[in-house]
Amino acid sequence: MKKTFLSALALSAIALSQPAAAQFAKPEDAIKYRKSALVVTAAHFGRLGAMASGKAPFDAKVASENADIVASMSKLPWAAFGEGTDVGETKAKPEIWKQSAKFKEDSDKFQAEAAKLAAAAKTGKEDVFKAAFTATAGTCKTCHDDFRSK
Amino acid sequence: MKKTFLSALALSAIALSQPAAAQFAKPEDAIKYRKSALVVTAAHFGRLGAMASGKAPFDAKVASENADIVASMSKLPWAAFGEGTDVGETKAKPEIWKQSAKFKEDSDKFQAEAAKLAAAAKTGKEDVFKAAFTATAGTCKTCHDDFRSK
Repeated sequence: MKKTFLSALALSAIALSQPAAAQFAKPEDAIKYRKSALVVTAAHFGRLGAMASGKAPFDAKVASENADIVASMSKLPWAAFGEGTDVGETKAKPEIWKQSAKFKEDSDKFQAEAAKLAAAAKTGKEDVFKAAFTATAGTCKTCHDDFRSK
Repeated sequence: MKKTFLSALALSAIALSQPAAAQFAKPEDAIKYRKSALVVTAAHFGRLGAMASGKAPFDAKVASENADIVASMSKLPWAAFGEGTDVGETKAKPEIWKQSAKFKEDSDKFQAEAAKLAAAAKTGKEDVFKAAFTATAGTCKTCHDDFRSK
């Protein structure tokens, strides 16, 4: 009984890590999709950044709404980095496919920090929010440094 | 007491209908954002369509995951159709701003049907899912016919 439950948990963990199992007809469709997901993510993350940096006043409700969107969006792009999607209009470095474990690690860290950021925003405490924002931004930077061409 | 509660409800309804209150530096940023949100939406809606049309086998879990993403994404594009974003690289018709009540009605219907679709997918019943998919697809078509240039 316990074993079955744990197996089910393991299976659902796999499912949760790939909510949008890739089904793209052409590489350019995958590239357009992942760029689009990251554009939406960046727009909401940018609003959080304005608050974290003091360019905009901290508003707990707005922070929470935007952080929830970032946390949801953070799950999406990765399924679109399948084999054969390293060509065309993309800044994706070949290292994504050569160091796939590291790429997964980087993208997992972003998702984990984005989830923490959403929780931090819900506390309504500006300092908690700012610390979580900085941690999340660090995971963006690491992955971009490692895997995105300038 | 009751009045205060209802006022709070009304306020939260307004907040819920604009989760991503627009803050775009330039019209082209808003246009890029809304196009990106709709690209992501269309990718997941397309996977549902493949199942609804029988091109892909019905898988309740996959349907539910994709329908949840569509329901979340359905809330995003509308805040990016602000005044002054009718120029540049967009198929948005001027009617969006001339008939803003109708545009809001169309986009609200899509969001409502997308939420129902997510619930329908969770039932695991293929016929319930198909009916909800068709209803949602109808709201896409109506809004595109009314407000998107060919």
